[in-house]
Amino acid sequence: MLAVNGKPVIRESVIGTDKPLLRVLRGETVSPPPLWLMRQAGRYLPEYRVVRQEAGSFLDLCYDPALACEVTLQPIRRFHLGAAIIFSDILVVPHAMGQEVSFVEGKGPVLSAVRSTAELKTLSDGPVRDRLAPVYEAIRRVRAELPADVALIGFAGAPWTVASYMVEGASSRDFAYLKGWAWRDRAGFGQLIDRLTAATIDHLCAQVEAGAEVVQLFESWAGAVPDALFEAFCFRPVVRIAEAVKKAHPSVPLIVFPRGAGARSVDFARHPAVDAVGIDTSQSAGWAAAEIQPHAAVQGNLDPVLLIQGGRALRDEAERLVRALGKGPFVFNLGHGVLPTTPADHVAELVDAVRRAAG
Amino acid sequence: MLAVNGKPVIRESVIGTDKPLLRVLRGETVSPPPLWLMRQAGRYLPEYRVVRQEAGSFLDLCYDPALACEVTLQPIRRFHLGAAIIFSDILVVPHAMGQEVSFVEGKGPVLSAVRSTAELKTLSDGPVRDRLAPVYEAIRRVRAELPADVALIGFAGAPWTVASYMVEGASSRDFAYLKGWAWRDRAGFGQLIDRLTAATIDHLCAQVEAGAEVVQLFESWAGAVPDALFEAFCFRPVVRIAEAVKKAHPSVPLIVFPRGAGARSVDFARHPAVDAVGIDTSQSAGWAAAEIQPHAAVQGNLDPVLLIQGGRALRDEAERLVRALGKGPFVFNLGHGVLPTTPADHVAELVDAVRRAAG
Repeated sequence: MLAVNGKPVIRESVIGTDKPLLRVLRGETVSPPPLWLMRQAGRYLPEYRVVRQEAGSFLDLCYDPALACEVTLQPIRRFHLGAAIIFSDILVVPHAMGQEVSFVEGKGPVLSAVRSTAELKTLSDGPVRDRLAPVYEAIRRVRAELPADVALIGFAGAPWTVASYMVEGASSRDFAYLKGWAWRDRAGFGQLIDRLTAATIDHLCAQVEAGAEVVQLFESWAGAVPDALFEAFCFRPVVRIAEAVKKAHPSVPLIVFPRGAGARSVDFARHPAVDAVGIDTSQSAGWAAAEIQPHAAVQGNLDPVLLIQGGRALRDEAERLVRALGKGPFVFNLGHGVLPTTPADHVAELVDAVRRAAG
Repeated sequence: MLAVNGKPVIRESVIGTDKPLLRVLRGETVSPPPLWLMRQAGRYLPEYRVVRQEAGSFLDLCYDPALACEVTLQPIRRFHLGAAIIFSDILVVPHAMGQEVSFVEGKGPVLSAVRSTAELKTLSDGPVRDRLAPVYEAIRRVRAELPADVALIGFAGAPWTVASYMVEGASSRDFAYLKGWAWRDRAGFGQLIDRLTAATIDHLCAQVEAGAEVVQLFESWAGAVPDALFEAFCFRPVVRIAEAVKKAHPSVPLIVFPRGAGARSVDFARHPAVDAVGIDTSQSAGWAAAEIQPHAAVQGNLDPVLLIQGGRALRDEAERLVRALGKGPFVFNLGHGVLPTTPADHVAELVDAVRRAAG
């Protein structure tokens, strides 16, 4: 067995009845690293666009188990990926809480905004899993069809990020309503975060019970959390969720992706309930190897624009990332989602480049 | 004389013929910390809106020395601030290079996009200072009118950030053209960065020669620089500019504001030609005190949304920041620009809160 830095390097072909992604998330170094891509099921795939057109609204697609299963599996059929991620959206949670949610072409999500403690009463109190049965049914179907070495990832948005859409009512640049409420009325805003924390635990546990083998929490707007609110509204809710999921399902690993968190990413890595931390494109791979990998697996951080580009630059960068992070537990991924204009062939090129880089 | 952590704490009222901001940027700890606000001259001030309406286009205002001087001084007349920053825009540099630049209400900047080495030839080669005389004239006028304890700041955008507008032709979310070019053709994109580096040195030196006592480089899109391009297209151009300005004007301090740079902010702080590093709202004040302040002054990082809010939350946060950063060289500022909906009274409230917090 090879050893790098005193840790065993386990080669897929030699050992391993277990899936490579699960081994990495347990702290093993696996070569080549397992690879999956955020938004790997999406508009850049022509077969996705066909299904998307059939489905009616975006939420209709999320809630149709057969179609959601189909689009989840599309990239798995095309590429040699280490994981499938269930096709869904972070906004199914507020939708299940009774908020109006829709997706407007070219504009993104539009929600009936919730901006005060009084308006919280408009949200329903029951467990979100009662309303999200189609998501779990899709997970069951995907799990039954996945190849043996491909892991299935369930996911949710972290409370701050989901709250940002619930309060702003749409994507935002300044997050003035969100942060205004949080600064003005920490207790009231904290109620929203608490309710989202509970709903997220419920939703993630239900995904695991339906067959998800890994869960990922997307804190996509970690970079918008002011320093003084970070502990209460970002870090603590995330670790509460991680701990609760771990308590219910001790063997299921959890990935946190705190996009834009910069140096604060280390806080997540150090927490025992967090198994891996996603790094965004702006974060240094060398820094992540030194500061995050000693505590947790690292997932990331290829620039999605480079995946549009392809060719030599893509291969060089894949090699650089494998060199920088491949000596420890590493999941190859992007630093953000696949962009719609990405040529599908470039994904195959990337998978090949990562495999070659690992030698 | 008070001493904190072995460093002298110099009180304005006791010692100091020199301006507080300049003392902090030389590494002294000054209490209360000097305070200025990014975009302190702007739409939140009714008197600004009057001038803006008179001026014609936004660039007309930037290029009218009398009006630019007037709006630069407006916040100085209202509030007890430690610095004025010349009213201008980072896009006057590409404009001086011959690119079409305009500002569209509610949309932001619109430029004739430059997206290839061939298109670089459309840009003029002469020194930008020949075209930017009105900016320097405005600086001369402001300098002549400033109160004795208020420092005058000149500024420019860092090359990556200015290039982002030049290449995208507008604000962007994905920076797909910018990053696509940089990944595909490092040498060609490097020519654009080199030309911007030279133009920025020219423009900053001319501002100093006209009377700017401090210069700030805005790397507003540092968070969008992929890790592998950071050294070549963000860090190195910024330090080349810092070194060149320092060589020409050794006594003029330089502030770098690499918004979204996260842990990479430390790289700037460690460079001897950088006197201060601005931190954005997402960065931890405690982290900055530990990692940046030993090498450079820290400037930041109050949430602009809190300045809309005002009241108790604003006072508490001002106090927290002074506690976290006031024991070393610290310039009180926001983590981003003043938002247009900010009540002007809240700026006065903030100035008062910072003064009280410093005791």
